[in-house]
Amino acid sequence: MATDDNDIPGIAVVGAGYWGRNLVRNFAATPRTSLLWVVDISAEQARRLASGYAGVSATSSFEDALSDPAVDGVAIATPAATHAELALRAIDAGKHVLVEKPLAATVDDGRALVESAEAAGLVLMTDHTFCYTSAVRYIRELVRSGDLGDFHYLDSVRISLGLVQPDVDVFWDLAPHDLSILSFVLPEEIVAVSVAAQGTDPLGIGKPSLGHVSIEYSNGAIAHLHVNWLSPVKVRTMIIGGSKKMLVWDDMKPAQRLSIFDTGVQLDDEPKERYQRLVSYRAGDMVAPALMEREALARMVDEFAGAIRAGRQALTSGRDGLEVVTMLSAIQQSLDAGGVAVAVEERDQS
Amino acid sequence: MATDDNDIPGIAVVGAGYWGRNLVRNFAATPRTSLLWVVDISAEQARRLASGYAGVSATSSFEDALSDPAVDGVAIATPAATHAELALRAIDAGKHVLVEKPLAATVDDGRALVESAEAAGLVLMTDHTFCYTSAVRYIRELVRSGDLGDFHYLDSVRISLGLVQPDVDVFWDLAPHDLSILSFVLPEEIVAVSVAAQGTDPLGIGKPSLGHVSIEYSNGAIAHLHVNWLSPVKVRTMIIGGSKKMLVWDDMKPAQRLSIFDTGVQLDDEPKERYQRLVSYRAGDMVAPALMEREALARMVDEFAGAIRAGRQALTSGRDGLEVVTMLSAIQQSLDAGGVAVAVEERDQS
Amino acid sequence: MATDDNDIPGIAVVGAGYWGRNLVRNFAATPRTSLLWVVDISAEQARRLASGYAGVSATSSFEDALSDPAVDGVAIATPAATHAELALRAIDAGKHVLVEKPLAATVDDGRALVESAEAAGLVLMTDHTFCYTSAVRYIRELVRSGDLGDFHYLDSVRISLGLVQPDVDVFWDLAPHDLSILSFVLPEEIVAVSVAAQGTDPLGIGKPSLGHVSIEYSNGAIAHLHVNWLSPVKVRTMIIGGSKKMLVWDDMKPAQRLSIFDTGVQLDDEPKERYQRLVSYRAGDMVAPALMEREALARMVDEFAGAIRAGRQALTSGRDGLEVVTMLSAIQQSLDAGGVAVAVEERDQS
Amino acid sequence: MATDDNDIPGIAVVGAGYWGRNLVRNFAATPRTSLLWVVDISAEQARRLASGYAGVSATSSFEDALSDPAVDGVAIATPAATHAELALRAIDAGKHVLVEKPLAATVDDGRALVESAEAAGLVLMTDHTFCYTSAVRYIRELVRSGDLGDFHYLDSVRISLGLVQPDVDVFWDLAPHDLSILSFVLPEEIVAVSVAAQGTDPLGIGKPSLGHVSIEYSNGAIAHLHVNWLSPVKVRTMIIGGSKKMLVWDDMKPAQRLSIFDTGVQLDDEPKERYQRLVSYRAGDMVAPALMEREALARMVDEFAGAIRAGRQALTSGRDGLEVVTMLSAIQQSLDAGGVAVAVEERDQS
Repeated sequence: MATDDNDIPGIAVVGAGYWGRNLVRNFAATPRTSLLWVVDISAEQARRLASGYAGVSATSSFEDALSDPAVDGVAIATPAATHAELALRAIDAGKHVLVEKPLAATVDDGRALVESAEAAGLVLMTDHTFCYTSAVRYIRELVRSGDLGDFHYLDSVRISLGLVQPDVDVFWDLAPHDLSILSFVLPEEIVAVSVAAQGTDPLGIGKPSLGHVSIEYSNGAIAHLHVNWLSPVKVRTMIIGGSKKMLVWDDMKPAQRLSIFDTGVQLDDEPKERYQRLVSYRAGDMVAPALMEREALARMVDEFAGAIRAGRQALTSGRDGLEVVTMLSAIQQSLDAGGVAVAVEERDQS
Repeated sequence: MATDDNDIPGIAVVGAGYWGRNLVRNFAATPRTSLLWVVDISAEQARRLASGYAGVSATSSFEDALSDPAVDGVAIATPAATHAELALRAIDAGKHVLVEKPLAATVDDGRALVESAEAAGLVLMTDHTFCYTSAVRYIRELVRSGDLGDFHYLDSVRISLGLVQPDVDVFWDLAPHDLSILSFVLPEEIVAVSVAAQGTDPLGIGKPSLGHVSIEYSNGAIAHLHVNWLSPVKVRTMIIGGSKKMLVWDDMKPAQRLSIFDTGVQLDDEPKERYQRLVSYRAGDMVAPALMEREALARMVDEFAGAIRAGRQALTSGRDGLEVVTMLSAIQQSLDAGGVAVAVEERDQS
Repeated sequence: MATDDNDIPGIAVVGAGYWGRNLVRNFAATPRTSLLWVVDISAEQARRLASGYAGVSATSSFEDALSDPAVDGVAIATPAATHAELALRAIDAGKHVLVEKPLAATVDDGRALVESAEAAGLVLMTDHTFCYTSAVRYIRELVRSGDLGDFHYLDSVRISLGLVQPDVDVFWDLAPHDLSILSFVLPEEIVAVSVAAQGTDPLGIGKPSLGHVSIEYSNGAIAHLHVNWLSPVKVRTMIIGGSKKMLVWDDMKPAQRLSIFDTGVQLDDEPKERYQRLVSYRAGDMVAPALMEREALARMVDEFAGAIRAGRQALTSGRDGLEVVTMLSAIQQSLDAGGVAVAVEERDQS
Repeated sequence: MATDDNDIPGIAVVGAGYWGRNLVRNFAATPRTSLLWVVDISAEQARRLASGYAGVSATSSFEDALSDPAVDGVAIATPAATHAELALRAIDAGKHVLVEKPLAATVDDGRALVESAEAAGLVLMTDHTFCYTSAVRYIRELVRSGDLGDFHYLDSVRISLGLVQPDVDVFWDLAPHDLSILSFVLPEEIVAVSVAAQGTDPLGIGKPSLGHVSIEYSNGAIAHLHVNWLSPVKVRTMIIGGSKKMLVWDDMKPAQRLSIFDTGVQLDDEPKERYQRLVSYRAGDMVAPALMEREALARMVDEFAGAIRAGRQALTSGRDGLEVVTMLSAIQQSLDAGGVAVAVEERDQS
């Protein structure tokens, strides 16, 4: 593994599609990395993208980038089915790796990636972009600090008239966002126990284009996800209920993305005679915190640079990516079995 | 059965609680009925409510009302567990009956009511109030006329910081609204096949205070209901996706409750080479129809009067009420079985 | 002046129209007053309204109520042109008086009322209902406590497809709300200096049905009112800018009527070289305080009762009503003069 | 004037600030122009901006661009005070000119520009960007086709926590948008007659940072503008009332920018006895048309190219820019005179 003198990691981006262009723009903009290569199976597309940035080479051969000693990290933004092979080649070449979500197309592939990177002592990072937004960082702090109280439920709606994807169904397309946020914000000790999913294919395209996921957690809480490519309106809302506070994250309201309600319903310690008295309500003020509107992707690429330089795991690691793939796999199993709850494998502890 | 000379049905309202007061107010206001009695186990509460209206008697004895030949119809607004017994007594006394939702606490009770009323040739009506709103009437017409195209999915969110009810869980409290609307607006030939439900009890009150219901229909469509007593925000939104149009009903937006989107995603008949070409999108205008803001309950009591006078079934009949109870019972079974899909009994055809 | 033994003022309501019905309902509901009479020029309308309440007499003769020694206070909800005469008769009869806004149709009439009531030692209260909402009370506290900082500006939009009123123009119909709120919430030392108004009559009904008012204050601040009977959407929004905080009151958003922004723009004390540096911005959290949703009118009638019992001025006094009429009169003068700024007469200090 | 062989106008952009960067990006992206030069008084800033685009030269000397025969059009995005001098030099050099709003800092300067361009037979275009949005184009069609009916009023709110500008006040900063839209959408025969303005300077920066403008039109209609740098919330709303329809344009709602209400209030032709009967109301459906979300600036630069190639006036011409400057000048006069209505000079007819 090469690190250039001034300790700024050299980067190759693989995949010049929609997400690759976003990665290139951010790796080029940050002073913390040095963007060196754009790789795409279409040499022409690689060239077109690279041409906009000084000192960036284009190639259709992954080997060109892997054999360049100035390249420290490889960012992979290709179709999910190719993630594992490309990432393994990069690890074998001694490169740190950043992989677009989902980390891999199967749990086995994902696990192989995690183990290879750990064996080689390399950074394996999953690009769970939402975890780098100001809103999600704020939510994580609110939940993990205990300010929200006990975690009661989460409800996420991620629907719009979305593009029907050629290679994945609506769960693999949209649910990774929610699943990565869930494991990012929930306390470590609260783990998913089982998953049940329903989907439907009204277009007759051979895979669900809308569906629902219910996740049961070790503390009895439920998280529910509604993912939908066929909604006339775009909704990006997440509600989290806690015993002390509740929050609403509405990502379509830039001026008030987060609303924190000092609201609660509690069982009274000393039950009174009439049933209703058992429960007490509190509806307090709502606070919408001021959030810095920095692009999440800019923070994400800086985190990749920081992890490489410090030789540490990234905030959204390969294991986090594996966890998301494990959940997606359980969703698939539940769908195949007609919606029955499927147990989630124990999270690997290392 | 008695009908007074001028053909205006005499009415007794049983139950002087929250809903009973609403019924009394509307039966008193309409010229199509003659409100005669308010009945409540608390004579005091019956008296207090009746005192606001001229010519209305109060009693704590149901018999007083049943034995009054001027009473043609009895409206029951008592706790659900008492519906069956009270309604049967009224039917036995030859009275037409209106029952607050849910029709009964069990499927057996509900079926007994339906059969008794049919045998006696009496009107048995379920107070599915939402079916009398301008919004739901408009939706029914849009769906049943074929303007929406094939029914693809329905998603309903009915959440707020709601009162934890002493006698029912969140499903029995809130889902009857959605279930009654569903059977009211969907075409007759599309029937529910199975139901799966998940619930959670974060307050530790011995029953779910939030949960999710997925209903699979005979044409493959899915309806999903989110009911929740613990939400910091009040949401009353229903999205219905069709092959030609899609609609959003937001009952918290009085100025624009209904939005009809001329939006569609279709599978092309002649598939092109690239996968994406299989699907075509259309995003057209949105229309928010002007809706008359007449109180639904006013229309509902008029429908009861009309059914009595014409000797016909009401728009929301006892069978409709039985169907909702059947669905609630299936939800209960699914919850008890850990969320597995439970088959819905065939709708009785008569 | 009569006061019954248990010190609960007896009340007569004059005018059985829309507002009179609201007053009657609230006077009947509060335990702090004893509603005795409903007076209307139509004996039939008075009777119909009174019949809904036990122990309330109806009459078409104002004298009946004035000569009843059990009547302590008279609430007047008749057309504005009749306020002065009716109120003076009540004062002459030794009754405390509550007058619907506007207090009177002319400044002279208003002043006569104020002086008569003061001479007689009777309560003269103006029904500025909005001043009894939780939102306006909160705003008053925020502004008068100094938490908002210096008052910079106020902008009010009060528009809808409103009923064209037979007896008043849009300014007299809608602006009293804003004008009464303004004098209620602004610090006493900030006084209106001049008023300019523009109106237009697109329907050709002989008076403006929409218009704008700009008020200049003694500290240089501007308040602006947009009143409009011809808007396709209903808007009830008030923005108040202060040097420390800013607030938005959106009365059409029951779940979040008030939003307090910890936001400011300040001139730096030590100007830097470049012009822009003179100004510094601060965008902090927003707080939406929990407000009790008690009906304002209920608080208003209780205040009338309290003022009568304590022999004190009401929170919204006759002088406050006179100030609003003075402003309306200045608006009229400005309209007549083509929109020029009209000086506002000094507020009477007593 | 030079035109290159394939008839694609060569362009020089003057000013590498915020707006210049936007122009450069769009001139570079469209195939209808050939971007040749970036000019800025800072050679460094010009170079930095030009370096992102192939074949674009940078210079700090305006002469370099003016003397290049391949340059057909010059786009000026410098401070307003410099517009006239730079544009005149370009016209003298035989170049077509596009000027950022406002066209000039004074009416005299603006008129000199218009006359020079007309004398030279060159295109003089004002960059009134909003006129190229889908929303404003739709509004223009709705109003000018007669579908809206008679024009009754317009109300525009353009407020936010905006940057206090070093060289202009809030009127010159924000009102040009509204003024250009007004003259773009209103029928030609409806002309502004007078203008009244109020402003206030709560920050003490020597010029208004918020204010109001009322414009009276030849048909009696009023347009009102609220411009404000000190609002805690960003609002971009325009309401237009017509005799047949009314519309709301809310530019902060990307999913529903335009709402067209089939709503009206009319004076009945045959007046009935009671006053209220004179007026009839109609509240019909609302339609939110689907609008293409193409960037307005892309359309604007294409219009500049099209006008150059066809030798015709642009859709937003120099005369349109002059009209806006004339209105801004009248606003300034009204402010200086304490808010009195100032007559608007007759529009030049050519």
